[in-house]
Amino acid sequence: MGKVLIIGAGGVGTVVAHKMASIPEVFSEIMLASRTKSKCDAIAEKIGGNRIQTAQVDADNVPELIELINSYKPDLVVNVALPYQDLTIMDACLETGVSYLDTANYEPKEEAKFEYKWQWAYQEKFKEAGLTAILGCGFDPGVTSIFTAYAAKHHFDELHYLDIVDCNAGDHGKPFATNFNPEINIREVTQKGKYWENGAWKLTEPHEIHKPLNYPEIGPKESYLIYHEELESLVKNFPTLKRARFWMTFGQEYLTHLRVIQNIGMAGIEPVQFKGMDIIPIEFLKAVLPNPGDLGENYKGQTSIGCRIKGLKDGKEKTYYIYNNCDHEDAYKETGTQAVSYTTGVPATIGAMMFLKGLWKQPGVFNVEEFNPDPFLEELNQRGLPWHELHDVDLEL
Amino acid sequence: MGKVLIIGAGGVGTVVAHKMASIPEVFSEIMLASRTKSKCDAIAEKIGGNRIQTAQVDADNVPELIELINSYKPDLVVNVALPYQDLTIMDACLETGVSYLDTANYEPKEEAKFEYKWQWAYQEKFKEAGLTAILGCGFDPGVTSIFTAYAAKHHFDELHYLDIVDCNAGDHGKPFATNFNPEINIREVTQKGKYWENGAWKLTEPHEIHKPLNYPEIGPKESYLIYHEELESLVKNFPTLKRARFWMTFGQEYLTHLRVIQNIGMAGIEPVQFKGMDIIPIEFLKAVLPNPGDLGENYKGQTSIGCRIKGLKDGKEKTYYIYNNCDHEDAYKETGTQAVSYTTGVPATIGAMMFLKGLWKQPGVFNVEEFNPDPFLEELNQRGLPWHELHDVDLEL
Repeated sequence: MGKVLIIGAGGVGTVVAHKMASIPEVFSEIMLASRTKSKCDAIAEKIGGNRIQTAQVDADNVPELIELINSYKPDLVVNVALPYQDLTIMDACLETGVSYLDTANYEPKEEAKFEYKWQWAYQEKFKEAGLTAILGCGFDPGVTSIFTAYAAKHHFDELHYLDIVDCNAGDHGKPFATNFNPEINIREVTQKGKYWENGAWKLTEPHEIHKPLNYPEIGPKESYLIYHEELESLVKNFPTLKRARFWMTFGQEYLTHLRVIQNIGMAGIEPVQFKGMDIIPIEFLKAVLPNPGDLGENYKGQTSIGCRIKGLKDGKEKTYYIYNNCDHEDAYKETGTQAVSYTTGVPATIGAMMFLKGLWKQPGVFNVEEFNPDPFLEELNQRGLPWHELHDVDLEL
Repeated sequence: MGKVLIIGAGGVGTVVAHKMASIPEVFSEIMLASRTKSKCDAIAEKIGGNRIQTAQVDADNVPELIELINSYKPDLVVNVALPYQDLTIMDACLETGVSYLDTANYEPKEEAKFEYKWQWAYQEKFKEAGLTAILGCGFDPGVTSIFTAYAAKHHFDELHYLDIVDCNAGDHGKPFATNFNPEINIREVTQKGKYWENGAWKLTEPHEIHKPLNYPEIGPKESYLIYHEELESLVKNFPTLKRARFWMTFGQEYLTHLRVIQNIGMAGIEPVQFKGMDIIPIEFLKAVLPNPGDLGENYKGQTSIGCRIKGLKDGKEKTYYIYNNCDHEDAYKETGTQAVSYTTGVPATIGAMMFLKGLWKQPGVFNVEEFNPDPFLEELNQRGLPWHELHDVDLEL
């Protein structure tokens, strides 16, 4: 049916390549490219069957990207590289006339804002070129927004309160590691908290608001209000929301490690002079921390991510909880990566499928809640991330 | 009276230069040299009066050291550079026929052992050359060993139990910083504990043994048994010791920071590949942590370091406690550095004075407890580090 170019060969790229390779009726040709071609080759070899071609590309370099895209001529570029590289890849897509999908919003290196403004600014360009750009199609952002769209479509007349809840109850057996790119992870969880209430953003100190939340099959876990990027597009696309928040679980030890990493200056994004070189501390930290892609082997336990919604249906107040639980060991058995990569890579694969099938294909730049959620969620059930609904339960909202 | 070359322009070098400059009757000419000449120039300028000459030298480079020593022709080289550089400086002293003094034992970069074996191996060479090498003449090692020698000379017939106790009750107002070179500090306090008992070394896990000890003018502080280098020479030079231990105070936050620094790999001494370079994590950590030399300004509180001894005098059991308390603010007022640098630099200055006066001058390699403690301790009282004695008190030994 279609030809895809995957850029990025980390944990998420590994999952996307595995999943796409298993759906030949949709993904007839697949190329995997990254800065380090040997990583792509290793993934391709593990998948086998000559399903995956590989290539070397520096995703910071627009001319290199253009050359690769022009030579391979994909129908879609699936960007699972670093968020720093979203804009260079979007530029290359515009230049070559190819549609685009990613899983996390663009971040400039020098500030950690988690805002869509840079990518939304491409709206007119993609529209004029007749190309589709699908933003944030992982789990969160991604499935959480599609869950919200599904709730709005089928179960509510008005959404009023939204809590996105993200629990990782897994144990990787290491004293400290991040579940995805440490640079992005640490920047995300150490920033100030922020949530939407009554038409305005409310700021909190980092980790200022927290409480135990009860997760299905897991039980209560201390959960912290943090800012997460999908909130920005959700309050724009669902303007009836009176409040929208994002909660994530952290263990005490994880928070202690984060606090120390900040105290000692290793979370810094300003270069430090070292032996005549300029080194950004958090980039070096990434080099010494365990590689998130290698955590899978001994990772036990589940993730549970979902949306807790209160609103109106037929004039009555209603509560609704839609979620997926994903098991780290099962994810590892299938793709050789842990659940945090798995829950990001599977939705990216399905998003690409939606595009290639023509179901999510229209000129412009879109967040995933702007598309029809139904065919996506149907596939999600089939492709390893079954989801569940609870109606009219106590949601601690 | 004499000409000295100081190598090393950190906190300790700053104190040594200040102190020596204030004693012109002993130190008639002073040169301060380090890898970065501008640091020497800044110290010299602050001292003023054209008392200090400065020079650039790479202390890892024996030919460069030889050239500098030959051109300046000092009577003594005072090494307050890094412990990694002890041997290159000793080699240069032998080559040029100049005596030597340092404040910390040689450490190879690749292993952290805190052993004197490498420097003791120079014994015959210094003897044959008719030169003196004075090892470990800071506070600990240094004054603690001289305190022990003084106790043995004046108050005991036999030393049986020795506890060296090192309390820093100061507060620098920063979330985390080390009081001296972070590389050496972290390697020292994260290693296994070790103490001497009944003729053998006993090993403990890091920080396994700890208890609150009571410090004069400070009160009780949780103190941890760690290995410290002077124990090695003291049990050799005072063979009646049945037990010798070293205790250091640490706050919970300091230990938490150390634990995390180890967990995340930033205490590592093996190179890590980063952007095509080999970078040693603990060296990069040093570049991001506060410079110990800059801690002085807001440092409040005291250090208290001393020796608690039990033994026999005239056939009766006796206890004895000899210690110095040093105030961070007073140290800063006098020299612009905090007490940890001050308590190291003042003894190095007095050791150099002992050599130049001919009181501690004999061919060979010596630890400070092998010399006459009396003239040294007399000077210590005069030069900013007055000491105190307590007899027959409960020493918690």
